[in-house]
Amino acid sequence: MTDLTRDDLYAMDVADPLADLRDRFDLPGGVIYLDGNSLGAMPKAAKALASDVVSRQWGHDLIKSWNSNHWFTLPYRLGDKLARLLGADQGEIVCCDAVGINLYKALALAIKLNPDRRVILMEDDNFPTDVYMAQGLIDQLDGDYQLKLVPGPDLADAIDDKVAVVSITQVNYKTGLMQDMKAVCEKARAAGALTIWDLSHSAGAVPVDLNDAGADIAVGCTYKYLNGGPGSPGYVFVAVRHQNKAQQPLTGWWGHRAPFAFDRHYDAGPGIQQMSTGTQPITSMSLVEPGLDMFLDVDFDLVRDKSVKLCDLFIRLVEERCTGMGFYLNSPRDAQMRGSQVSFNHESGYAITKALISKGVIGDFRAPANMRFGFAPLYVRYSDIWNAVEILRDIMKNDTWRAPEFNKVDAVT
Amino acid sequence: MTDLTRDDLYAMDVADPLADLRDRFDLPGGVIYLDGNSLGAMPKAAKALASDVVSRQWGHDLIKSWNSNHWFTLPYRLGDKLARLLGADQGEIVCCDAVGINLYKALALAIKLNPDRRVILMEDDNFPTDVYMAQGLIDQLDGDYQLKLVPGPDLADAIDDKVAVVSITQVNYKTGLMQDMKAVCEKARAAGALTIWDLSHSAGAVPVDLNDAGADIAVGCTYKYLNGGPGSPGYVFVAVRHQNKAQQPLTGWWGHRAPFAFDRHYDAGPGIQQMSTGTQPITSMSLVEPGLDMFLDVDFDLVRDKSVKLCDLFIRLVEERCTGMGFYLNSPRDAQMRGSQVSFNHESGYAITKALISKGVIGDFRAPANMRFGFAPLYVRYSDIWNAVEILRDIMKNDTWRAPEFNKVDAVT
Repeated sequence: MTDLTRDDLYAMDVADPLADLRDRFDLPGGVIYLDGNSLGAMPKAAKALASDVVSRQWGHDLIKSWNSNHWFTLPYRLGDKLARLLGADQGEIVCCDAVGINLYKALALAIKLNPDRRVILMEDDNFPTDVYMAQGLIDQLDGDYQLKLVPGPDLADAIDDKVAVVSITQVNYKTGLMQDMKAVCEKARAAGALTIWDLSHSAGAVPVDLNDAGADIAVGCTYKYLNGGPGSPGYVFVAVRHQNKAQQPLTGWWGHRAPFAFDRHYDAGPGIQQMSTGTQPITSMSLVEPGLDMFLDVDFDLVRDKSVKLCDLFIRLVEERCTGMGFYLNSPRDAQMRGSQVSFNHESGYAITKALISKGVIGDFRAPANMRFGFAPLYVRYSDIWNAVEILRDIMKNDTWRAPEFNKVDAVT
Repeated sequence: MTDLTRDDLYAMDVADPLADLRDRFDLPGGVIYLDGNSLGAMPKAAKALASDVVSRQWGHDLIKSWNSNHWFTLPYRLGDKLARLLGADQGEIVCCDAVGINLYKALALAIKLNPDRRVILMEDDNFPTDVYMAQGLIDQLDGDYQLKLVPGPDLADAIDDKVAVVSITQVNYKTGLMQDMKAVCEKARAAGALTIWDLSHSAGAVPVDLNDAGADIAVGCTYKYLNGGPGSPGYVFVAVRHQNKAQQPLTGWWGHRAPFAFDRHYDAGPGIQQMSTGTQPITSMSLVEPGLDMFLDVDFDLVRDKSVKLCDLFIRLVEERCTGMGFYLNSPRDAQMRGSQVSFNHESGYAITKALISKGVIGDFRAPANMRFGFAPLYVRYSDIWNAVEILRDIMKNDTWRAPEFNKVDAVT
């Protein structure tokens, strides 16, 4: 049995310097939300903003909003805010398109920037869309490009002088294993390879300092820890030293030097504008800002500190309170090697996850056996960890998860 | 002077079978909105839906919404609704990504479907992003592909046995010139070329019957006449006979046969799913539906009939009421060759457009001299035409447009 008690965790909430931030989210009652790594919670400010964007900006101001409500510059305003969070310079990030599209652009750009090499290197357990985009690009090009997939822990050692670009998700979507960005960048630079970082599971979850690490290119989504809303647009970073050197292939009018000249020939705009494509989904994109602003208000060291504690506590309590119930940690035990999520394998993980959801503890499941729990320090409380583990324990003790309704497979989990 | 009077046009409003539809839009007072070809007006239903999507679906239902609020199937539900409007079959259209991204996918797919040819043919006055995307694709491929640009009226005659694909905007964004889809498709088929239709300026504006015309591939946006909201996602059509034959290169997880299997290798889903990429901007995408539903409620013959009358009246009144003021029609006079927009060239078009906007008549300007007016039959009234032309006449008679504030160039117009 543990020495920790329920009261200890409630006391940690009282002492939590980030406790007030939870009030800036609209969270449903009766829910412990441990899935912010998949879809972040809604900032209250997003609700009012959605109404403003739709009713006033679209409905009333109509076409004038491109100027008067700054729709046209929104991708760069958000990009610059992301830059502050991610250790990039102003003008190195633009918010646009989906993360997968941005990865395609990034890969296509990288192989142009490193034209004598033919290998794209990735972790074999990378988020599938990243792998698929590389496969799609390679299939399209009649060169002799190849995608080399290696186990995550072997990634850095596999960077050799054949590798054009190593494309890495900093925090693995399933296990939460975090790559050492600086070490991988150094390894890559020494071998003459470029790096592309997918920050989808790290932005807002762990400290990211792109320029300190020497990252070349990065992409990410805004709908996970950044709380931008369902499917909100992604972003792309290109270090200033690589800008204006080569052109990614999705050359749309927003990337043109003078979009409203309606020239017949593409002439790439300067800097990060070259990564823009066309008209962006303004309503979804606008809602990215409240979540982002919240991060710019806080000391990220406090966020990381709380994230580590939440994850450590969850691991400790599951292992102590659910001993012998078949849960095996599928995340690094060492917080330094872990993002803000924890996975446990269980052979009945799917049904257990569904049973947890029915009791208000929302995590998710990734086949074949991976129960995944994300800890968003801005709104998850220490006491939530205690209560979530107690509910898990009850579900196991009472065999709740064996009910047929928890064993029926949904389209999406 | 004209025989038409103000009262004639008010009488036409009274007799208009579509008159009630205007009440389903939230339009600002004091505005005559003739820019629905750039950004459509807001359906009132979009306002309530935005609140529901953000507050309830995102805020309350959180991650469960992928199933319970049908986020995951939304692209296909909207695609099937678009198919009803555009003469396609169910399963031939998916709503996703931006129109430019979809055009890139379409072009990449088309050259794979027609692998022995190397020419992409376009109108030289095509919407720039369409031209740029072709240029981006060609630059990326180390084949000997070439982009051939010819004047719009010569397009059909330029289709020869070297052309892999002719990529055509059905209604020209500047002049409103409408291509004869069926005739171009027949010409292309006879020459062994494929067609890609950009429907951005035709969907919701003119009758479109993709399968009757024999179109191969099509793309479009939803934020113009379809009233989907600023930058709302586009769509892509692939005729069923071309599905499952070749793969477009933006291979994301939503296009995978089993997205949640998280396989390591891309395995394209059946049918139109192969055109999907990744997670979509759900808030923006959800707001496409109210506008679309309105079209599915009405007889499109009535829409086209009203569109033709609005455009004809506008041309007639400008030419009669603003005689000798320097306006030259830059659109086809023959309604059969015209979309739902009318352009006039004027050497001071920029300032006049700005002066019109200041008086509540919202059209737009495309360099160097093109004043562009769109007529969305669902909410533009006959009397609006009268009043807009009278305001234009006043601006010219009083030299209002010469004021300095109308001659200062904005970032976006």
